[in-house]
Amino acid sequence: MQAALALAERGRGRTAPNPNVGCVIVKDGKVVGRGWTQPGGRPHAEAMALAEAGDAARGATAYTTLEPCAHQSPRGPACSDLLVEAGVATVVAALGDPDPRTDGKGADRLRAAGVAVETGLRADDARRPMAGFLTRQAFGRPHVTLKLATSLDGGIALANGESKWITGAPARAHAHVERARHEAILVGRGTYEADAPTLDVRLEGLEDRSPRRLLLSSRHPRESGGPSPAPAPLTDAEELGPRFRGDDGWEVVTSPQAIIDLTDIDHLLVEGGAQTAAAFLAADLVDRLLLYRAPILIGGGTPAIGDIGLTDLAGAHGRWRLRDRRMLGIDVLEEYERTR
Amino acid sequence: MQAALALAERGRGRTAPNPNVGCVIVKDGKVVGRGWTQPGGRPHAEAMALAEAGDAARGATAYTTLEPCAHQSPRGPACSDLLVEAGVATVVAALGDPDPRTDGKGADRLRAAGVAVETGLRADDARRPMAGFLTRQAFGRPHVTLKLATSLDGGIALANGESKWITGAPARAHAHVERARHEAILVGRGTYEADAPTLDVRLEGLEDRSPRRLLLSSRHPRESGGPSPAPAPLTDAEELGPRFRGDDGWEVVTSPQAIIDLTDIDHLLVEGGAQTAAAFLAADLVDRLLLYRAPILIGGGTPAIGDIGLTDLAGAHGRWRLRDRRMLGIDVLEEYERTR
Repeated sequence: MQAALALAERGRGRTAPNPNVGCVIVKDGKVVGRGWTQPGGRPHAEAMALAEAGDAARGATAYTTLEPCAHQSPRGPACSDLLVEAGVATVVAALGDPDPRTDGKGADRLRAAGVAVETGLRADDARRPMAGFLTRQAFGRPHVTLKLATSLDGGIALANGESKWITGAPARAHAHVERARHEAILVGRGTYEADAPTLDVRLEGLEDRSPRRLLLSSRHPRESGGPSPAPAPLTDAEELGPRFRGDDGWEVVTSPQAIIDLTDIDHLLVEGGAQTAAAFLAADLVDRLLLYRAPILIGGGTPAIGDIGLTDLAGAHGRWRLRDRRMLGIDVLEEYERTR
Repeated sequence: MQAALALAERGRGRTAPNPNVGCVIVKDGKVVGRGWTQPGGRPHAEAMALAEAGDAARGATAYTTLEPCAHQSPRGPACSDLLVEAGVATVVAALGDPDPRTDGKGADRLRAAGVAVETGLRADDARRPMAGFLTRQAFGRPHVTLKLATSLDGGIALANGESKWITGAPARAHAHVERARHEAILVGRGTYEADAPTLDVRLEGLEDRSPRRLLLSSRHPRESGGPSPAPAPLTDAEELGPRFRGDDGWEVVTSPQAIIDLTDIDHLLVEGGAQTAAAFLAADLVDRLLLYRAPILIGGGTPAIGDIGLTDLAGAHGRWRLRDRRMLGIDVLEEYERTR
């Protein structure tokens, strides 16, 4: 299952609205097939692993991070049927599939055909690589990661605006890998106007993984005439959005809540700045924090997060749990996930 | 030497202007004597360990964190003489004593009497428990630790001023142990007026370790008439300081640089607030950072550190090195030390 979870990671950010599943088929203690959901969502992981296993799948055990699907689609048969046809003896799934088209029906179909089915192995670990799909199923919105790169005292820029670079090359490279794990990246108007970020994945071999670029703004950026003057209100985001996108690839999102409409995005990376981070936190739409921290003190810099409307400290406690931590050169990366 | 270093820690914050030394005497593979500099600076560690060892010191090896002193004082004989008299065969010192009254003379005196002397074992580790003494010898000022207790986004209080509590009970208990390791604690005027902190050591068995309380202020706090209105300037700190101290135990320090005059304080803990932290950092008078971080986000809170006059990010890099990190309940403590 550990190997299947690692395979699931490969599809993360590329399979929405399908889940990014990993599958490993084991026969007589040997791996005979490996698969993961391919970009665009097909083929499914099980189909890929079965194709690799061929006849060796007969009597084998399939480890899969999600219950095999029970629904046929024009793009391929149901994985539960494929597993039965291939003669797989046992299927071990980390998680049941919450998609109402499967939701136990995949396991039922396998059991009805005499295949042994177990569910729940490494369930907690499986929730992480498939967080986007699961968040979509549970809450009808993308899984949102907020990335912050700060000094030890929580600054993201000097008072004069300088922000290049706070973290070092290893941390920035890691942040680019994270970009490749998301279907879309979002920044706010201030970051857009100050930095005109390209938000691409600047890592060899991953250039084609550059995600869609979203701009949080209630107004059309092109109407602002510069960083400061008050621009005209965006009266028709629907009409202006595509026009803007047509220009340079940016799409406009008019509020954090509007991400619910992005049904083809399961993983959204919010990269700042402080007001955008605050808007998503205030809307309780952040599931994961990626905190890159450099061993520097700025003092009087721009704080990482603007006002989120907190009125007492009690309300701040108990919401985040440290999930992972690692050194990236001399910087520290901490990963927190929401507790509820 | 590891045991001697641990013994040295016992005296930290209580021996200034004397170094807090640890000493272990080993004979035939057994520890026969242990000592550490006693509160007030006497007896010295070696004298205490020799007293415990008695006759067993003859032919033994003494491990000491600092070169034994060569100077007699009205309060006791030189340790190098005591070691010779006791018949110790070998002295292993972590560090040479930079005090000009010893500075190699202790080792010379031992060697002249036929005692084998080695210096340098665990030298780097020995610099930490004796940082106060060594900073005093090298720079003529106390060793300064800046403590910050922040949210993940670097806040020390809500916008409305609420700051109790950001960190949890284990982190606060640890901060009280740190207080006991310093001769004095300093806060700024804002913290003094807003919180009227007692700055005592609220840990069972350590109540008597409560350090001296210093207030960074160019003006007499009693003249302020409250938290906000501009008070009259303190024209004679020398005169007002003692008076103020007489009232409620506080002493006034008029600038970070004024700590140089505190010759009986080798370890100073700066506890905030943001402007005080900034003043010490801007004066380049911070040697160690203690960062307690709670897994909460405040957003728009009071930043931990005020303006330190930084004009470019390049100037911020390379100054701090992560020295230690531990979990304290759900909070994280990071300890950084200056690199130069």
